[in-house]
Amino acid sequence: MRELIVWTFDWVPEGPRGFVRDIRLRWACEEAGFDYSVRTVPFDAREADHFGRQPFGQVPFLSDGGIEIFESGAGLLHLARKSEALMPCEPVAEAQTLQWTVAALNSIEMVSVPWWFLEVTGAEDNALTGWLESRLDHIETVLNEREWLVADRFTVADLLMADVLRVPKVRSHGNRPATESYVRRVTERPSFKKAHADQIAHFATADAARCSAP
Amino acid sequence: MRELIVWTFDWVPEGPRGFVRDIRLRWACEEAGFDYSVRTVPFDAREADHFGRQPFGQVPFLSDGGIEIFESGAGLLHLARKSEALMPCEPVAEAQTLQWTVAALNSIEMVSVPWWFLEVTGAEDNALTGWLESRLDHIETVLNEREWLVADRFTVADLLMADVLRVPKVRSHGNRPATESYVRRVTERPSFKKAHADQIAHFATADAARCSAP
Repeated sequence: MRELIVWTFDWVPEGPRGFVRDIRLRWACEEAGFDYSVRTVPFDAREADHFGRQPFGQVPFLSDGGIEIFESGAGLLHLARKSEALMPCEPVAEAQTLQWTVAALNSIEMVSVPWWFLEVTGAEDNALTGWLESRLDHIETVLNEREWLVADRFTVADLLMADVLRVPKVRSHGNRPATESYVRRVTERPSFKKAHADQIAHFATADAARCSAP
Repeated sequence: MRELIVWTFDWVPEGPRGFVRDIRLRWACEEAGFDYSVRTVPFDAREADHFGRQPFGQVPFLSDGGIEIFESGAGLLHLARKSEALMPCEPVAEAQTLQWTVAALNSIEMVSVPWWFLEVTGAEDNALTGWLESRLDHIETVLNEREWLVADRFTVADLLMADVLRVPKVRSHGNRPATESYVRRVTERPSFKKAHADQIAHFATADAARCSAP
């Protein structure tokens, strides 16, 4: 296989550590047993070169031989087509994996991230709360009936949905026991734990380098 | 080919007509020359049966023989794999189509839809405006340099990005000539015009049926 490279920032402040979205690609590579390396772009000076590769100035992006792909959701679907550990080949299960991956991005995260943004920027009366609660309630109904979103097994759709739902403010908003046990089940996987620990270590090493810089 | 069915509501109020997301699947089928039919679920009484097929109670969803798939973005990617009119087979262009399709969903629509929601529900000082403007400015930079997002040709990524950007409040927010000319270019395609006219006619027929109901 061609060399897989997960690109992330060289450093980020403490707040987002453990949640920077390179974790999604690291985690997928761990689940699939892919060889991959991690390389960095500067956080402090997001240069033209970075915008050339990621026009919104964000991370992660993925290199796969001659292919460069940004958007963590797209990177996950790209990786998923290379390994049955991430997505079954059977057409119905494959379509459902695609469907739930997009649902995590466009039915949950489309509400939860702007809701979170309003919360942390101090909105007194968060106008997105009702919408968030409705979406979380629908997911709770689904997760009451099954352990995994697709085909009674872990797929990349669970990876992404759990990553979206584990954001602390979202996870602790209301009492949804099926969702809570789902998030716990998915994030107890050794591949998540390794990806998470690797990301934390990556940014801690960067701290040390910054401190010792002249 | 197995029968393609685009599912939408039997009726919606005037406001969203022309923008109900079944238009994305109709448009893709028109671009690809697929035979498809349109069937409906009740708008007024969203029943358990509907939630069984679309757990957020929304439309559209797509039937393709034994496959049922919800989320318009997932339906588009599913259809794109069946026709080069929607997505090139060449691996780099295919990855870029996937990337820009997810960017429309998760980098633009994730901000533009909640921003729009806050606008129409009467937020005095829309806290998402700065974020929306930053995302629209980044897209303007990209569209200043190219006519189409991928491979110098129309793909399903343009279909979705233009559908996200043509929402009137978003389209008229600020002056971004490259984006405006892109939206015009994409929505001037005969397949968009047919899908749009078909959706308008579909809901107009439903009006007539409601008026004549006992």
